[in-house]
Amino acid sequence: MDAYLAVVSKREVRRYLPRPIPEEALEQIVQAGRASGSSRNRQPWRFIAVTERTILRDLAPFVFRPANLEGCAAAIAVVLTNPRAQFDAGRTAQNMMLAAWTLGIGSCPNTPSDEAAMRERLEIPAEMSISTVLSLGYPAPGEPRPRADADPAAKLTRISRLPLAELLHRETFRA
Amino acid sequence: MDAYLAVVSKREVRRYLPRPIPEEALEQIVQAGRASGSSRNRQPWRFIAVTERTILRDLAPFVFRPANLEGCAAAIAVVLTNPRAQFDAGRTAQNMMLAAWTLGIGSCPNTPSDEAAMRERLEIPAEMSISTVLSLGYPAPGEPRPRADADPAAKLTRISRLPLAELLHRETFRA
Repeated sequence: MDAYLAVVSKREVRRYLPRPIPEEALEQIVQAGRASGSSRNRQPWRFIAVTERTILRDLAPFVFRPANLEGCAAAIAVVLTNPRAQFDAGRTAQNMMLAAWTLGIGSCPNTPSDEAAMRERLEIPAEMSISTVLSLGYPAPGEPRPRADADPAAKLTRISRLPLAELLHRETFRA
Repeated sequence: MDAYLAVVSKREVRRYLPRPIPEEALEQIVQAGRASGSSRNRQPWRFIAVTERTILRDLAPFVFRPANLEGCAAAIAVVLTNPRAQFDAGRTAQNMMLAAWTLGIGSCPNTPSDEAAMRERLEIPAEMSISTVLSLGYPAPGEPRPRADADPAAKLTRISRLPLAELLHRETFRA
């Protein structure tokens, strides 16, 4: 899949097929997270890949949309060694979600609604924080899915986003 | 460029050629930021594209590595309407840097060292915060540059990152 198309066509996917994610795909996704840049290359993240159904079900009540975790094929928790490194967490998470997208796998980030409970269930040391839990799976019917033959310009026209004119300023904000 | 290769091969570039970035490329980069997902699709970001040399020079002292802004061909400030949305800022910034990379353009994020001064120079309203300023430009000799013929596996082997075994946990952190 073309890189620019992947970046502009990636959509959040929240309903998944029961089909499991092959181990090789999971590793490719995590490698994309590992490769991400971070402030001073500190790599303030650790990843927990969860595929056991009982654990996914246990975690579901601790995010704002439990169905995402109940129905996903796998989840990747992004754990921070520095809780203020949320910008870097966003970079590595985006890398992983884009890598998944190029493999035909949908995903979305889930913010913990009960971080303490999630930390306990995932046996995460107290000094670390949970930035997000990515839910992953092949898209269910009706969900967005990657299309290698799509046109980036058409994707950008139909997208549910503010128009560029409202987002983009030139030289200064006021100008 | 292949999407997975782009994601795993993207490196920070801090020294740039004086060659300007074509307007069309700048727009493609910002569109990639616009397309990014965000929590509840709130799109908590605004972008300021800066290409005027005098403004870039004015901004340089307000980041930790002034040379990045002094030498870049363009900068994109990521301004947040919600200062807590750093995770989403990381997602949109990563999208823009990956889009740039696919166009042969290097980049890196610059955290403000003096956000108040930068806000004033960029005429940003007081209620908004600056997450990062991306410096952009075609890579100077010796800097990393995108290679469409590179092998992702080789890139992942040679990368200056913690080994996957240290980063990745399975099912729980302790397991």
